[in-house]
Amino acid sequence: MATRRINMKDIAREANVSVATVSYVINKRKDQTIAKSTIKRVEDAVKKLGYVPNLAAKALVENKSYLIGVVIPQTEPGKQFMFSNPFYGELLSSIEFVARDKGYHVLISGTDVDQSYLEIANKRGLDGIIIVGIHPDNYYEDLKNTSIPVVLIDSYCDNLPFFSISIEDRKSAKIATQYLINKGHRKIAFASGVITGNGVTYERFLGYKDALEEANIEVNDDYIYSGTVSQEYGADIGLKIANQKDRPTAIFSTADIIAFGIINGLKKAKLSVPNDISIVGFDDTWIARDCDPQLTTIKQDVFKKGQKAVELLIDNENITNKNTVLDIELIERESVAQL
Amino acid sequence: MATRRINMKDIAREANVSVATVSYVINKRKDQTIAKSTIKRVEDAVKKLGYVPNLAAKALVENKSYLIGVVIPQTEPGKQFMFSNPFYGELLSSIEFVARDKGYHVLISGTDVDQSYLEIANKRGLDGIIIVGIHPDNYYEDLKNTSIPVVLIDSYCDNLPFFSISIEDRKSAKIATQYLINKGHRKIAFASGVITGNGVTYERFLGYKDALEEANIEVNDDYIYSGTVSQEYGADIGLKIANQKDRPTAIFSTADIIAFGIINGLKKAKLSVPNDISIVGFDDTWIARDCDPQLTTIKQDVFKKGQKAVELLIDNENITNKNTVLDIELIERESVAQL
Repeated sequence: MATRRINMKDIAREANVSVATVSYVINKRKDQTIAKSTIKRVEDAVKKLGYVPNLAAKALVENKSYLIGVVIPQTEPGKQFMFSNPFYGELLSSIEFVARDKGYHVLISGTDVDQSYLEIANKRGLDGIIIVGIHPDNYYEDLKNTSIPVVLIDSYCDNLPFFSISIEDRKSAKIATQYLINKGHRKIAFASGVITGNGVTYERFLGYKDALEEANIEVNDDYIYSGTVSQEYGADIGLKIANQKDRPTAIFSTADIIAFGIINGLKKAKLSVPNDISIVGFDDTWIARDCDPQLTTIKQDVFKKGQKAVELLIDNENITNKNTVLDIELIERESVAQL
Repeated sequence: MATRRINMKDIAREANVSVATVSYVINKRKDQTIAKSTIKRVEDAVKKLGYVPNLAAKALVENKSYLIGVVIPQTEPGKQFMFSNPFYGELLSSIEFVARDKGYHVLISGTDVDQSYLEIANKRGLDGIIIVGIHPDNYYEDLKNTSIPVVLIDSYCDNLPFFSISIEDRKSAKIATQYLINKGHRKIAFASGVITGNGVTYERFLGYKDALEEANIEVNDDYIYSGTVSQEYGADIGLKIANQKDRPTAIFSTADIIAFGIINGLKKAKLSVPNDISIVGFDDTWIARDCDPQLTTIKQDVFKKGQKAVELLIDNENITNKNTVLDIELIERESVAQL
């Protein structure tokens, strides 16, 4: 099978004219006089060979690529995307949908260890960059000096010259934990991915502690579970909690997908949610509505997060406030019992 | 915040030279003599302003974009990607990972109603196209005439001049159904997305019928459930089957995500898997390992599907067989009981 794209040379050969003539015809140059019959020959060849001028040429002229780069967390540096968390699929889906509507395309690329995303951004002439989640500090360093607009989703790198979109993670976690406290729970575990400064997980950890503190409950280190954002880790936590000596009666998990795993882990240990242990999740991805029992969780508007990010990249002339904070809502379902 | 990319004009202004001079220096043209001090001025300006030459220029010269387009099914024509099925996230993740390793980037774009993907492909100068799932016939029509290599994943459009990657869907479905028959089941339901010619669902439906026929079991139309590939539709099926008069004792579902929904639907109707009803899924996404009970399912190698697709696009000079068929395997877990 042919693998080469049709170019002007092919048109020139087919139409039996020079490449310059093809270029004049295709670019509708008015400063050249070309015989009508020649124009017709070129146009016929274009049609026959299925040639379409490349956006790369347009990009060079307009200095615009209509291309937005999206960075999603990887399972490990240099590895695959973390698509096992439905949150990222939903977010990417929203970004692509809104971008498409505005005539833009989405480039997705992870980075290899030690590769700078700026390199990718410049090479591709990206019109904007959306970075989801947190990355090592030096990841942002390079990007500080680019004139390409950058939107950070779910990070707390406040000192950087980027746009940011987030929710009030600390407050949300406090609301979730307070909800459990109001249901009579005092032994409340915290389950999350790695707790890193600048990250949403750290903020949610602070919110969890805020709620405990306000209720005069001491933080118990044995109740803090921090690993990976995955159902596997959740299942691990579930088994561990089931076998814990002074077992917590409730769990606040910073991701639905971890909560889903915890429920499975507890089930394996013959414990039931919410009868034995209550649990509140985070995100309100489809997993929350479709696990058993249905998950009480903090709902964030994933579609809006993606939409707002694209809008900020495309039209940011009059934006004075770099930080957009979206609303959340606690959704009551079946996973919490009154103690 | 600045939203414009640095271009040669900016460098020229900063270095106080002409744009032509900037171009000569950046492109290291040997046919022009430029003073060393001028070269230094330009280089300093490049560094200061963070200018990097654009891949768009390189693409025009090399006629290669190092860009692969990936098309994922949308929930409806013109709508968002169908990322709620974890299969697509896993596949995209694998495509991006392998492409990145080979120096390529991935462009994802759905299409609007009546938009041709060829338009996108040509505009972007894509080096290859991966189309996942089946699309209306006219979707492929345009692409027939392109010289850009196309790989179809999971479709049966055999008459098209494209590469294809698939599994033996018909045989896989037969294996799954026979497994249930061997466990003593004769009332076996079929649960799937829309059954369309050329699609994997249709092939799997044929395989299901093959197995019944060989065992002298008549196909019962009341046992055929065909809707959308989603947990919601699965939950619907579960409730319907629970209330069915002559209820099936087993279900073969063409997607884990539907099976997951069915289990939830049955649970709501106080029926348990596998005690009341057995179920076999398809794909072996993480959902299969982490639902309760764990799903007996047909495992396909999702990573390999993505990997092979990228390899076919990048190096297809000596490929004589357009169709790649990957192996499958039945994974026994907890969702099937002997009748």
